[in-house]
Amino acid sequence: MAKLISEGTIELDRGVSVYSCAAAVGKMESDGPLGNCFDYAAEGAELGLTTWEKAESTFQQYAFDIALRKGKLIKEDISFIFAGDLLNQCTGSAYGLRDTNISFIGLYGACSTMAESLAMASLFADMRLGEYFAAVTSSHFCSAERQFRFPINYGGVRPPTAQWTATGAGCCITSVAEKPPYVKSVTIGKITDMGIKDANNMGAAMAGAAYDTINRHLLATGTSPADYDVIYTGDLGQVGSELMCELFRRDGTEISHKHKDCGLMLYDREKQDVHAGGSGCGCSASVLCGHILPQIAEGKLHRVLFAATGALMSTTKVQQGESIPGISHLVEISDAL
Amino acid sequence: MAKLISEGTIELDRGVSVYSCAAAVGKMESDGPLGNCFDYAAEGAELGLTTWEKAESTFQQYAFDIALRKGKLIKEDISFIFAGDLLNQCTGSAYGLRDTNISFIGLYGACSTMAESLAMASLFADMRLGEYFAAVTSSHFCSAERQFRFPINYGGVRPPTAQWTATGAGCCITSVAEKPPYVKSVTIGKITDMGIKDANNMGAAMAGAAYDTINRHLLATGTSPADYDVIYTGDLGQVGSELMCELFRRDGTEISHKHKDCGLMLYDREKQDVHAGGSGCGCSASVLCGHILPQIAEGKLHRVLFAATGALMSTTKVQQGESIPGISHLVEISDAL
Repeated sequence: MAKLISEGTIELDRGVSVYSCAAAVGKMESDGPLGNCFDYAAEGAELGLTTWEKAESTFQQYAFDIALRKGKLIKEDISFIFAGDLLNQCTGSAYGLRDTNISFIGLYGACSTMAESLAMASLFADMRLGEYFAAVTSSHFCSAERQFRFPINYGGVRPPTAQWTATGAGCCITSVAEKPPYVKSVTIGKITDMGIKDANNMGAAMAGAAYDTINRHLLATGTSPADYDVIYTGDLGQVGSELMCELFRRDGTEISHKHKDCGLMLYDREKQDVHAGGSGCGCSASVLCGHILPQIAEGKLHRVLFAATGALMSTTKVQQGESIPGISHLVEISDAL
Repeated sequence: MAKLISEGTIELDRGVSVYSCAAAVGKMESDGPLGNCFDYAAEGAELGLTTWEKAESTFQQYAFDIALRKGKLIKEDISFIFAGDLLNQCTGSAYGLRDTNISFIGLYGACSTMAESLAMASLFADMRLGEYFAAVTSSHFCSAERQFRFPINYGGVRPPTAQWTATGAGCCITSVAEKPPYVKSVTIGKITDMGIKDANNMGAAMAGAAYDTINRHLLATGTSPADYDVIYTGDLGQVGSELMCELFRRDGTEISHKHKDCGLMLYDREKQDVHAGGSGCGCSASVLCGHILPQIAEGKLHRVLFAATGALMSTTKVQQGESIPGISHLVEISDAL
């Protein structure tokens, strides 16, 4: 049964599978290096709808519906949904999943939501509080730009440290252990503030949280980077990734050869103008559901850490001169039970 | 061990206590009928700080710190914090609890957050995933008005159906069964949309969700209103409360004689100009932590349902003409193990 083995780290020893998963993304994401691995790729970002917010919610619906279909499930099979997103009051999830009629546990973890929701859905599966559990999240470049920065029509100039909010959604459906990938353990993050006040440098704001969570997980499980095929972070981007590796180096731990960042995997920074990389709940969600989990299911990856990262800021707080706290939740996933 | 006994309803049969709790409120709340029951009552709403948002976060800190003190605990005793609030990106919680250095699970349930966080903190306690678990939430009239309606300086006129966002915060600390109050079971809400589009009529938007959750809990546990001393709702206010009782009447169930709404308890509507009643995460949180839980601890109440209610809207969605979905999470609390 789920056991707290160290501060924030819970071991799931009854066996939990990611039974099904799906990723639905926009055009720019499907034009990227991982383009052929997503379950749904939109022609554009609007999905023929009247608002960006409706489109974001619809990406969540698509990810959820496709994950059900791939698992040969119907929505009535899902006992609980865990979901959240970046929009004010998490309306991407509330409106996207409004019609499911499933018990709904709303989460807020900013861009770390895919890991937070998967951690909770895995915990519920390990506790056998039903049969199947959904973890869903999304982000949308246009709804995020409008809300956090400028309406895209303004054509505001973005600094090099800025990241590109991914348009897309991911859904994981967990169950008792049936087949790989298996969720072995989770480490819940702590709010970590590096004193960064630049809303265009989220990667730096989140690097400390990623370091803290991954470091605590390695200590709690008595493992080192060598024990994992890959240690994924959510969306630190170029700046945040270098910072995090440097924080590990100070402890004498070299992690860079094992580390990959979803924000640096989703786009081709040579050809696509995303500056420091991708970000947004949909970034790590689509890379996890479209690329990482299938690789584990196929046995191409055996043991990985997925540490999604979130910046817990709002425009109000940034305008008030506050620094930006970060958080990172981690899920350990393996192809062996 | 925690058991799913029906759709969304989880029974906690290993024994869970609300070990400690605290409520910190503003001036208007302490001037109300429950004024003498709160652990901290501010002279004003600013707490001498430079922004309303800082003040809201500080109310959360106060509630958390006082709950620890009342339980003779230090923050290192807390294994996980579950928290959320109404501010964009839940910054009331992120900044209020930023310095705790405790594993943080961010939630979003709008004004239902006290029940959602207490449900999760109780579940973790039942699963013995640590010793103590904190559930925290807050709201602030001025930060909410500015964000959802108008800066208060505008003096915008409020319609009679409008509710008054409470200034205050509540914190519950759960543990293994030690003493009453005991959390017996929880029912997780579903997103329920009554088609209400008026952001000044939240009570009506949430009434259907409260009805659905309470009704499912009664069916799941094979109980009726007669089995409870009081069935509390979060912040339906006058309009929503009447609507919910009417929905039960349609099933031939009379609930009004057992029903109390925190939004109607917090203020004296004769003397205080709160229109349809109180609302906000801090409303049901302060009534639960300041009034309900102490009454159970003292044996004045024996068995109650606490169904906090939330409207999952944002100004963007309302401006886009969307209806407002509601959700209600429920916690059953008793003085007997």
